[in-house]
Amino acid sequence: MNRIVNNPDYAVEDMLKGFVKTHKDIVAPTEDPRVLKYKDAPVEGKVGIVTGGGSGHKPAFIGYIGKNMCDAVAVGEIFSSPTAKAFLDAMKEADSGKGVACLYGNYAGDNMNVKMAMRKAKKLGIEVKTVVANDDCASAPKDELEKRRGVAGEVLMWKVGGAKASMGADLDGVIAAAQKAIDNTRSVGIGTAPCTIPAVGHPNFEIKDGTMEVGIGHHGEPGINVQPLKTASEIADEMLDIILPDLPFAEGDEVVVLLSGLGATPVMEQYIVYDRVEEVLAEKGISVHKAYVGNYFTSLEMMGVTLTVMKLDDELKECIDMPCDSVGLKQLQGTDMRIQNELYSYSCWRG
Amino acid sequence: MNRIVNNPDYAVEDMLKGFVKTHKDIVAPTEDPRVLKYKDAPVEGKVGIVTGGGSGHKPAFIGYIGKNMCDAVAVGEIFSSPTAKAFLDAMKEADSGKGVACLYGNYAGDNMNVKMAMRKAKKLGIEVKTVVANDDCASAPKDELEKRRGVAGEVLMWKVGGAKASMGADLDGVIAAAQKAIDNTRSVGIGTAPCTIPAVGHPNFEIKDGTMEVGIGHHGEPGINVQPLKTASEIADEMLDIILPDLPFAEGDEVVVLLSGLGATPVMEQYIVYDRVEEVLAEKGISVHKAYVGNYFTSLEMMGVTLTVMKLDDELKECIDMPCDSVGLKQLQGTDMRIQNELYSYSCWRG
Repeated sequence: MNRIVNNPDYAVEDMLKGFVKTHKDIVAPTEDPRVLKYKDAPVEGKVGIVTGGGSGHKPAFIGYIGKNMCDAVAVGEIFSSPTAKAFLDAMKEADSGKGVACLYGNYAGDNMNVKMAMRKAKKLGIEVKTVVANDDCASAPKDELEKRRGVAGEVLMWKVGGAKASMGADLDGVIAAAQKAIDNTRSVGIGTAPCTIPAVGHPNFEIKDGTMEVGIGHHGEPGINVQPLKTASEIADEMLDIILPDLPFAEGDEVVVLLSGLGATPVMEQYIVYDRVEEVLAEKGISVHKAYVGNYFTSLEMMGVTLTVMKLDDELKECIDMPCDSVGLKQLQGTDMRIQNELYSYSCWRG
Repeated sequence: MNRIVNNPDYAVEDMLKGFVKTHKDIVAPTEDPRVLKYKDAPVEGKVGIVTGGGSGHKPAFIGYIGKNMCDAVAVGEIFSSPTAKAFLDAMKEADSGKGVACLYGNYAGDNMNVKMAMRKAKKLGIEVKTVVANDDCASAPKDELEKRRGVAGEVLMWKVGGAKASMGADLDGVIAAAQKAIDNTRSVGIGTAPCTIPAVGHPNFEIKDGTMEVGIGHHGEPGINVQPLKTASEIADEMLDIILPDLPFAEGDEVVVLLSGLGATPVMEQYIVYDRVEEVLAEKGISVHKAYVGNYFTSLEMMGVTLTVMKLDDELKECIDMPCDSVGLKQLQGTDMRIQNELYSYSCWRG
């Protein structure tokens, strides 16, 4: 196992130190070693955006701290939930008195720890509401949406929630927009090689060479089926066949597409898959307003890709187009320069 | 080999199609299928910035097309030089009549093809001058600088050259700044696992599990030595021991650090290495003005990291701090907001 670490048991601590040193123009440490915050958080007059999750998913989760994005993030061990204390401390760091939107993914540990943190936050007078991302089509049937996991669609949820908060929406407005973002979003992943947690030293799940696992989770959770490895175009078709009927997406829809690598799959291959994705969407009369392709939500050096599609309306589009500045997502302009100029004025917070 | 491709022989073509679809807000195709350009190129009144190189190094090279970065890029097959025709077509696309700075890396194929393209460009009345990056310390001794390869330091060369051109410098001014950037830059790489070219189907070089190759090139060119795999901090020390005496860097210097993964090494591990890099530099009285950590110059799914350090002066610092908008490097602000506002006005081209 060719891992570049010091003590594998302290990989998260060591990573956080390097991350803060690298990005001091955007993030700041807090008194809680497992919470990082936007350097200007809490932002006066703005609803705070909090998330959190296990480590190993770079740039998620701390890479989405920044202007018009998340204000504070709770950091867990590799592939495991942050503690309730970390979530609580993140809520404290993000709250300017306008309340906190905690936008996170549907995993048992995160659910439990966020709930505990919310009870304590309430006692401290911090109002917290949540959106629990459940965009992974493969993790439960359509009639059990509440059992589905959150995956790369979380990035779009943070983008929308972060933008809405910066536009001056109140807590209910931010929650409604972020909830709509994830309700309009469907994802699925295909894995082609597993990954190794440094402190474990060997993969804790298997994907045989020459095969692919359709619907695999971000931590190696079992997918729908295992097949011989297909071509990039066939993989695109397979993922779209799962995603499109699920919402469903229909002719005339305008969408955002996020195609992420799982870590070690070259970005070159991700573009090859994306080429077919946009082709199929065009054939179906679905137009892509904006596409993100790259390593947006990874699982260490797992190989494979995830596909996320979000159906837009005017509100979501305005949020997606807003400029933002985080490590994992930097956006200087929307597709329409006029909109950009208007939105830049939104993002000049009074605080 | 779990590659996600269609026909491996057309991986570059397929990738380019997906890349253009994804990034139509920044790049545009040209009549030459192996040349992409900045959507607004040629930019009226501005020196054109051209580069080119083999594929498989995402985001290099096409990912550095954009505002205040490169205007046109020639695209080669995986790990091999673009043709002379592609370099020539890129020069044509970038030239607004103010001349073209061709900023590329020191490899035999690229040298030959750029020279051929320049002869033809001259006949067409396009003035082209070059800077040939040679930042890789491990590829030749210090007294044979002209034999050294260009590696991740090229990203800083493009950043400086691109900024200088946008500030309104003439061709000689852009060339002088880009040459100074690379002259002030030193890099070295450490590989921990090889990569596989899709059309070949197996790695064309070997790095044994549990070992690391110090000084390895971006295409698996042999390094200085092979050692048992060390810790992240030891790897940082080893790389700094090669880089720092070579320029040499000295107490009181201000530097930019670029730590890139080679593809499959998790970004988490790159931050662990960076933590030690900045610590050692601080001990030596060398201050980091700006750090870039992430997959800035890769070699498919090779594992390992490269370290690049550039010594700054006022001119280089101004260029590094300028905002830019490319796929691989987006920068909304310098460390000094006052400088940022001044520089934004530079970047509002009249063209």
